[in-house]
Parts: sequence; C-alpha cells; structure tokens
Amino acid sequence: MITPPARLQTPAAVLDVPRLERNIQRMQGRMNALGVRLRPHVKTSKCLPVIAAQIAAGATGVTVSTLGEAQRCFEHGIDDILYAVAMAPDKLPQALDLVRRGCQLGLLTDSLQGAQAISRFASEQGQAFDVWIEIDCDGHRAGLRAEDPALLAVARVIAQGRLSLAGVLTHAGSSYALSDPQALAQLAEQERLACVTAAERLRAAGLPCPDVSVGSTPTALSARELDGVTEVRAGVYAFFDLVMHNVGVCQAEELALSVLTQVIGHQPDKGWIIVDAGWMAMSRDRGTQHQQRDFGYGQVCTQAGHWIEGMQLSAANQEHGIVTLPGVSGAELASRFPLGTRLRILPNHACATGAQFPHYQAISACGEARPWSRWHGW
Amino acid sequence: MITPPARLQTPAAVLDVPRLERNIQRMQGRMNALGVRLRPHVKTSKCLPVIAAQIAAGATGVTVSTLGEAQRCFEHGIDDILYAVAMAPDKLPQALDLVRRGCQLGLLTDSLQGAQAISRFASEQGQAFDVWIEIDCDGHRAGLRAEDPALLAVARVIAQGRLSLAGVLTHAGSSYALSDPQALAQLAEQERLACVTAAERLRAAGLPCPDVSVGSTPTALSARELDGVTEVRAGVYAFFDLVMHNVGVCQAEELALSVLTQVIGHQPDKGWIIVDAGWMAMSRDRGTQHQQRDFGYGQVCTQAGHWIEGMQLSAANQEHGIVTLPGVSGAELASRFPLGTRLRILPNHACATGAQFPHYQAISACGEARPWSRWHGW
Repeated sequence: MITPPARLQTPAAVLDVPRLERNIQRMQGRMNALGVRLRPHVKTSKCLPVIAAQIAAGATGVTVSTLGEAQRCFEHGIDDILYAVAMAPDKLPQALDLVRRGCQLGLLTDSLQGAQAISRFASEQGQAFDVWIEIDCDGHRAGLRAEDPALLAVARVIAQGRLSLAGVLTHAGSSYALSDPQALAQLAEQERLACVTAAERLRAAGLPCPDVSVGSTPTALSARELDGVTEVRAGVYAFFDLVMHNVGVCQAEELALSVLTQVIGHQPDKGWIIVDAGWMAMSRDRGTQHQQRDFGYGQVCTQAGHWIEGMQLSAANQEHGIVTLPGVSGAELASRFPLGTRLRILPNHACATGAQFPHYQAISACGEARPWSRWHGW
Repeated sequence: MITPPARLQTPAAVLDVPRLERNIQRMQGRMNALGVRLRPHVKTSKCLPVIAAQIAAGATGVTVSTLGEAQRCFEHGIDDILYAVAMAPDKLPQALDLVRRGCQLGLLTDSLQGAQAISRFASEQGQAFDVWIEIDCDGHRAGLRAEDPALLAVARVIAQGRLSLAGVLTHAGSSYALSDPQALAQLAEQERLACVTAAERLRAAGLPCPDVSVGSTPTALSARELDGVTEVRAGVYAFFDLVMHNVGVCQAEELALSVLTQVIGHQPDKGWIIVDAGWMAMSRDRGTQHQQRDFGYGQVCTQAGHWIEGMQLSAANQEHGIVTLPGVSGAELASRFPLGTRLRILPNHACATGAQFPHYQAISACGEARPWSRWHGW
C-alpha cells in the first residue's frame, strides 16, 4: 500500500530510500577501493528490501546477530551467512538445520569450551561446520587477544575433526566512543593489525586461516588501508544516526531513518511541546549522552526533514515525548507548532529505534511511502 | 506449545504466572477495599491472557496507550476502553470506527484546540464521543492544572454539541522518582486532590463530571483514601520491576517478568561473563540509574529465579550482555558459570523489556512454559 507521507499514521519509522541507497553505495564503493569484500550486518535493518539493496550494490553475504535473522535471510535466498555472536552449545541444532538445508553458515567461538562443544556436536551429527575465531582488538567485549596462548589451542580443536577453520573475526566496538578522525584511523589500524596478527599466528603454526574479517561502521569509514583483511562487516552505515554523526563519519543529510510524530499538546509555562513519539517509538537509547553533543532522545526536524537547530526530544515516557527549543517562549512554540503539527525526529541509535517498529515506511525519491516489514524477536 | 523452561530458546521473556496472579489480586483487593474501580493499563503487558486475568479478577474496562491496543482489546470483547493519551485530531477516524462498532471509547484532551477538534469532527460525523479532560497533578507531563482558567472553557466545549464530558483524569508520573512511603502517600493525596478539585470546579459551574480517574502503580499502592475518586488506573503492578522495587512498592519475590539468558563466553581477566541478553532483550531502559540502587541493565538470578546478590548485567550491546559480580575473580566466575549456564535477569522496567519480545513464555505453577503473544507497533 502506497501512502503519501502526510497521511502516515504517527508515530512511524520513516526511511529515506534515496539516502539509504547513497549510504549503501558509499560504503560499498569504499570497500571496493580498499580491495575487500563487504559483508553487511543485517542487525540494523532486519529488513529484506534493505538487505537486497546491499547485495545488489555488491555485498558478499551477510552478517547476522541471531539465528532467527540467519533463518530469514536463508529463506530469502541468501546462503552466505556469518553468525557473529559466540555460539551457544544449545543453539547448535538450529544451526545444523540451516547447514543441512544448504546454508553456508559461519559459527563463531572464542573459547576452548566453545570450540569443543561445536566439535563434539559436529562429530555426533556427522556434519561439517565452518567456524570462525573471535579476536578481541580493543578490550570492549568478547574474543581472544591475538597473542593469547589459547588462540592456537582453540584453532587446533577447530582444525581437526569435522570442523573447518574459516577465519578470524574482530569488531572494534570502542570506535563508537571516538570522534577524532586521527584516533579513528588509528583504531581502524589497531583492529586490522590485531586480526591480521592472529591470522598470521595461526598460519605460522601450520593452521589454515583463509579469511580475516574486521569491522564497525566508524573503523570501516576511517581505515586507510586494509592489507591482509579479506572482508569488512558494518551495519549502521546503511541508516546512520546521531551517534555516528557525533563520531564524525556522516553528515546530517545522510541520516536515513527518522521517526514521524505529531504535536498532541503543549505546556506553554514550561516551554514544552508534547508529541506522540515517546520511548516506545524512539527506544530508550541515549547513545549521544556521553558524546560531544547530547541530543536527548533525538534531534527534531520539520516534516520535510529540515533540522531545527536546538530542538530536541528532551524527555520521553512510553507514548509521550517532550520537545524543547531553548530560547523560544512556550507561547511562541504553541503558536508555531500547533496541535497536529508533524515533525520528524532523528534517533540516537538507528538499530534500537528501528527495533521498536514492525515496519519502516520507506519513502521513495518521488515521495511515496511503502511499508517495509522488519523482523522482531529471535 | 508447552516447553519445559530448561529447553526454552534464549533470550526469552519469562513470565511467572503465579506471581502475576498474586500481583493482580493484590491491586484488585486494594482497590476493592478503597471502594474504587480498577481500570488496568494494558500498555505494560499488551497481552490478552494478562488482560483477561485482570478482568477476571474484577477490573472494570481497560486503559490503553494507543488506538492499536484499543482495537485489539475491542476485537477480543472488551468494550469499555479509555485511551489515556491526548487525542491527535487526525486519529479521530480510527476512534470513530471503534465507536461505530459499539466500543465505549473514552478520548482525552487537555486543550481548547483539542476539544474543538473533537467537537467539530463529532458534528461532521453526527457521532457522539465520551471525552475526558486531563489534569496535571504534579507538573511531570501533560494536562491542565485543576485551577487553570482554561479548564472550564475546555469543559464547556465538550459539554455542548455531540460530546459528553465523561470525567477528569490524572496520572502522578512523578511517583516513580520517590521511595519514601510518607512521600508516596502524600503524592497519592496530591493526585487525588487535584483530580477531585478539578471535578468539583466543573460541577460547581453546572457541568457534569461523572468520573474521576487517578493512578500510577506507586500512588495506587500508597493512597490512604480515595474519596471522590471513581476509578484508578495502573499498569506495571501486574509484573512489577526493579524500578518499582526501588520505589518500595513491591518485594523481590513479586517481580513476575525476567529475561532467561545463557552464558556464551567469559573475559576472566576483566571479571566478565558474557550472556546472550543484550539491550535487544533487556531494552535500553536504565530506570534505576538515578534511584537508590542502580541495577545496571538488570539484576541477575539463577535459572530458578534466586537473586544473586551483587550480580548485575553491567553493560549491554545489541545481543551481548556483560555480567559482573564484584569481589569474585574472573576465574572463579568462569568455573561457577560455565558456557551454557542459564540465568534469569530481572529488568529495570517491565514495560520496556516486554516490548522487545514478540511473546512471553508464561510459566505456570507446575513449571510449564506457554507462549503468550504480545502486540508490537501502533
């Protein structure tokens, strides 16, 4: 069903398709120039038309954050899938089902215990699995350090029996906390170097390590070279958001996702406009809180998408948002933004805001909205 | 499909049905004792079996936060519905559809502009609507102060033409920031008094005001008397959560919702356990951050639900959570909580955590899990 945006129900997650397409081209073009494959992370969009656009632009396979995403991608013809979360042993039967149906599914581990569990299951089932080892390049989450003595032990468990050691993978998640281009380029190099070093240790020990996978949107857009890397994973680049804007890897006019809302009331004495986008629409993500600029629950724009400087969603209840614009009186706000005025709010974190909606309203270049459904749950 | 909890996929939103039932009985019993009706807010559960249990226990109608909730309740036989968010003029056709199908739907406004828009639409459509006026009792969000000169003007617009003035409604949302029983009882009285005062002003002016609706879980459980009040609205009491625990209106053993997760890795050097419940499962709600006790992203319990003192979900990425237990070494944590260990995490805010899941796993007294689906979107 095609709807003119002015008639969309509020709140709505509005996706600007021309911006989405430019963002996809930008990242793909950069990866092509750096000579690496791009394996987009579908956890941001969880939406087939977005993933299809990424693949059409040249992406090689996808990265997923849940086996539910893997299943849906596979059912829609994508068979090169990397599940980039350490494998829980009791999820192996789900993975087995996908592999037996022909999915080229990569599993991930960062421990001897994890590798042994996959190996045991593979033997019991008589089924081969591709297994990746997670490398910790910046101490922010999971993975083995490139120099960890356990790395070789884990790799040996994988390289024998029915498993194949597909490669090493890392993610410089700490890049979200940076904003200086120099520091970002350094972290991208640190990410590359940690992963390449791990791969070289394995190869020096006579172990195979065909692939070297790195990535986060900020490091992917900041890396100067990616020697030794075979593929890059990134997710939020397709939509971008205020966190990425603060990191400095996108311009305001590249932000493709926003929440369409409308004014449902005023508290002129307090300088508040009340809108129908609360945290249920925006999510509770306050990712810009500790960045160079805190955008509250989001930056307010006109319905047409023009950024209104200083106007923010300052507070959020479940279905109520409080919009403020410092320096403008409550009475003036009430007259400039009367009941029913439509606004668009740019989110802090596109992955979290998208998840609040069963579908995006994808707005084409000619201004029509089409619902693009997205996956919910695991 | 019935599943033993030990075989549930993780992450899962686990609902302890005996606790849920006791919570429902507790609030209903209290409202019966205070001589008022209870109109539960379904925005917490968005789940029919929960709502059915509330109605079976004696609730009179429901409160909704979206017209989507109203529609679903009505399609399942609930016809007394109060939409407790100020009416956006362009949502009136949706309300009209429900009213024409026989739903006794209450609409809300707090402005002359809002009342006029509803009145105009009612005249154009030749359709009566029940309209409530929102009163602001604590300055935390929307509504007119009881003494606001606009109150009578708004009421007069409603009382003429095709609309009926159904009553006045308030919500002491600031109660979430309290934790002292005395202060809570005082706020409950402030909430009651503001709403009753508004009703009396209307009646003194010769306007009808049959109903007086107040409520929030903390004030409902703290009010000493509710003279002049006809109904109470409350939502989170059905599940309770860590925010309510900090407010002091529930015990740990009353928390009915938790997230079942499992250990997927360790970083022994940092004292971290990595689990498969990140913010996608818990939500980004950090409601306890500024309360008397900050629980991070949640309090960790054993699979059986026993609170492990000091163990918290300290940090969350999309599908990764970092669990810590200060004072216990990383090596000991890795040996006490090996890969695959199942844990349950009590959420800060049940409304936000529930929304991350397409269904609850409702665990009955005999320990079986059944999926109870919940509504997503608007």
